[in-house]
Amino acid sequence: MSLDSHFAELEPELPPVPMSAGNYEPIVRAGNLLFVSGQFPIENGAFRYIGRVGAELSEAEGYAAARLAALNVLAQIRAALGTLEGLERLLRVEGHVASAPDWNNAPKVLDGASDLFVAALGGRGRHTRTAFTPASLPFHLPVELVVTALVKPDWTAQIAIP
Amino acid sequence: MSLDSHFAELEPELPPVPMSAGNYEPIVRAGNLLFVSGQFPIENGAFRYIGRVGAELSEAEGYAAARLAALNVLAQIRAALGTLEGLERLLRVEGHVASAPDWNNAPKVLDGASDLFVAALGGRGRHTRTAFTPASLPFHLPVELVVTALVKPDWTAQIAIP
Amino acid sequence: MSLDSHFAELEPELPPVPMSAGNYEPIVRAGNLLFVSGQFPIENGAFRYIGRVGAELSEAEGYAAARLAALNVLAQIRAALGTLEGLERLLRVEGHVASAPDWNNAPKVLDGASDLFVAALGGRGRHTRTAFTPASLPFHLPVELVVTALVKPDWTAQIAIP
Repeated sequence: MSLDSHFAELEPELPPVPMSAGNYEPIVRAGNLLFVSGQFPIENGAFRYIGRVGAELSEAEGYAAARLAALNVLAQIRAALGTLEGLERLLRVEGHVASAPDWNNAPKVLDGASDLFVAALGGRGRHTRTAFTPASLPFHLPVELVVTALVKPDWTAQIAIP
Repeated sequence: MSLDSHFAELEPELPPVPMSAGNYEPIVRAGNLLFVSGQFPIENGAFRYIGRVGAELSEAEGYAAARLAALNVLAQIRAALGTLEGLERLLRVEGHVASAPDWNNAPKVLDGASDLFVAALGGRGRHTRTAFTPASLPFHLPVELVVTALVKPDWTAQIAIP
Repeated sequence: MSLDSHFAELEPELPPVPMSAGNYEPIVRAGNLLFVSGQFPIENGAFRYIGRVGAELSEAEGYAAARLAALNVLAQIRAALGTLEGLERLLRVEGHVASAPDWNNAPKVLDGASDLFVAALGGRGRHTRTAFTPASLPFHLPVELVVTALVKPDWTAQIAIP
């Protein structure tokens, strides 16, 4: 079964690729390494979740926000490679969760991203992870994901990567 | 026109390379990847800006601080490679902006770094970016940049990289 | 003298490899790059230090916490490669120190990690570094280290890396 087969059932959920918030690229490739700009829980150009987990948002909403940010990561990679078939595997996921002072369970929230990656990509979605619990993130969003990935060595169809 | 030609008009602004604040290297190379230690708005060994954007500093000062931190990144790369001609391109810029609780416009401040990189390096200066808004950064500095870059594959003049 | 000889005297201190806190891998390899998940001051499965430096913890305790987190990094790399002989060198150490509002000396605390790496690995332990001073980290731990490393090009004994 191909990678995209695994991904097929999630594809309808894939959000449109969000625009960059400044003077930068969504993805840059160096050799087979893929550097993805920070991704947020954005859907159709709108901030779907706002606030800190443990205050304005529940842990379940945080989990859903992490999942949505992960869908944006996949949308960006698909837009850059043409299809997720070109993705060899994920390498590192840095997960930042805006956290209320008395809440501290970021790993559970970040499993919203990790579970989605593994569900969508199987073994290729397995990754290292780092968790952070800042008091706030840009635009008061609850989750930011910074992903580094690997492209298949023979993948030459670079459609949108500068 | 060579890369350094683009850079020539900015060169007089290039600050002296700051010293490391501890037991670490300013730059390490692995293959063609270049890892640069966190850079700050330092000029001639002094902290040029102190405080949080939205409190002690205005947004315009934040932008200028990000630009100065970016100049330090270029100064470090030039010191390591001998000349910026050896730089293939920037890959990732992680931008941390010390932010007052009620201020949240880090992307605008970080464009101070991104605009400088693109002005100095042209297409080679284009990069992915991540934005963070911590309550504080080391030494109460307003901006920290963590840059990953790519060296030209045939660039052998490694002058100062361990 | 081999790498492991340098490391020999520190080896009795090496903690057991901690379990992942969620759905992710401790280490992933891409080519010769090694991505290590965030490591904390954990010993025998227990959080050895809790709290912020400058409040619940002294600077000396922060230094010790950074050192213990660094030992966990080495434990993870050894578990993945079989022996630290397979490690070419460290590349980047991102150091996050949970900091009280009126305390700001993260570089001194992070030297607890850097000094350990250099003592254990010699020149191969030298690295670039970035310092961050968030108000809190996952599980109220005082230090988190995110390490990127390089494997020897001919190192094929991949025992536990997915």
